Amino acid sequence: MQVYHLYSGGKDSSLSAWILTRLGYEVKLITISFGILDNWKYARDTAERLGFEHQVLYLPRDTLEKAAYMCIEDRHPNKAIQFIHERALEEIAKMADRISDGTRRDDRVPFLELPRARSLEDRFDVAYIRPLLGLGYKTIKELTENLFIVEIRESEKLEKADYEVELRHLLREKGIDPLEIFPKRHYQSRVLGWREKRI
Amino acid sequence: MQVYHLYSGGKDSSLSAWILTRLGYEVKLITISFGILDNWKYARDTAERLGFEHQVLYLPRDTLEKAAYMCIEDRHPNKAIQFIHERALEEIAKMADRISDGTRRDDRVPFLELPRARSLEDRFDVAYIRPLLGLGYKTIKELTENLFIVEIRESEKLEKADYEVELRHLLREKGIDPLEIFPKRHYQSRVLGWREKRI
Repeated sequence: MQVYHLYSGGKDSSLSAWILTRLGYEVKLITISFGILDNWKYARDTAERLGFEHQVLYLPRDTLEKAAYMCIEDRHPNKAIQFIHERALEEIAKMADRISDGTRRDDRVPFLELPRARSLEDRFDVAYIRPLLGLGYKTIKELTENLFIVEIRESEKLEKADYEVELRHLLREKGIDPLEIFPKRHYQSRVLGWREKRI
Repeated sequence: MQVYHLYSGGKDSSLSAWILTRLGYEVKLITISFGILDNWKYARDTAERLGFEHQVLYLPRDTLEKAAYMCIEDRHPNKAIQFIHERALEEIAKMADRISDGTRRDDRVPFLELPRARSLEDRFDVAYIRPLLGLGYKTIKELTENLFIVEIRESEKLEKADYEVELRHLLREKGIDPLEIFPKRHYQSRVLGWREKRI
């Protein structure tokens, strides 16, 4: 029972990956890159520390270009992040019978509402598993704290492998300051390892 | 880390209970009764076969009376089942820091929409965990088939410990045929044991 799991190296995607292994799945972590930066290496590094199999999946640069224009048009990154996430899910859905991500009940973006989640499952004949969907803030916090050593920093300063990093970079290349588009003081997390060996 | 988990003996609430143990929680199964029938015994029996701690929680008969009138007014059981489920969650929320149930992503009733789930957590200062919320039909099916020996029958014929059984009984006592109110050919499940010992 193999699952392809979208992975950034953050605590949500790491916790989800652990839950999947606890349910008996063989988990392959997939990190998205547009080939502009090599920040996928942070996810690879965390994946190795946790003992998971890891693969980089390259999406077309065109997808990131579209996302950048969405940011510029909206002066906000939400639509762009959602757009990239859906393309990422569709790409891994072509490669596996089961796909997964670390989106949470309380997330607004990226997040697939139920009809959209079902549409993804139907169009690609996959099972889409979201291990954190039924967990609230407190539960995620207690599980994460028990399991992982976590580094938390402002997005601009964190060495991380999520879509935002290449998106910010491309905006800068276009002469746009990402700080005008992304929320200020947005904290993100990166997992550095297990508290004690768990898989 | 103890969780009080609403339990009917069906496959969804059994699968959720197993997932909770896999996440490291100490699970106490709670079956609701209104003290009219002793069908909670089926849940107790399954709980014992699976090796879980089990407790019967009695709700006031008045709650079932209100639910019966909802059924009669609506000619449909959805509102009544939702009403009982929310009262049940509130009662166990008074007894524990973490509560749980087996509701699924694709369920319509009983089901707490996100604002209602958050309200429950805030009013009772609990974490409300729904292990199946992020899993679709295929995933639940494959996990259940791997784990449990399951009996599936029409609701009217299944010996089971969910709210419906006492609700149907009370309607009959009031001279109302439950078949006029509950959907026809509604199949339900009861877990009979592990395929192989899992906890």
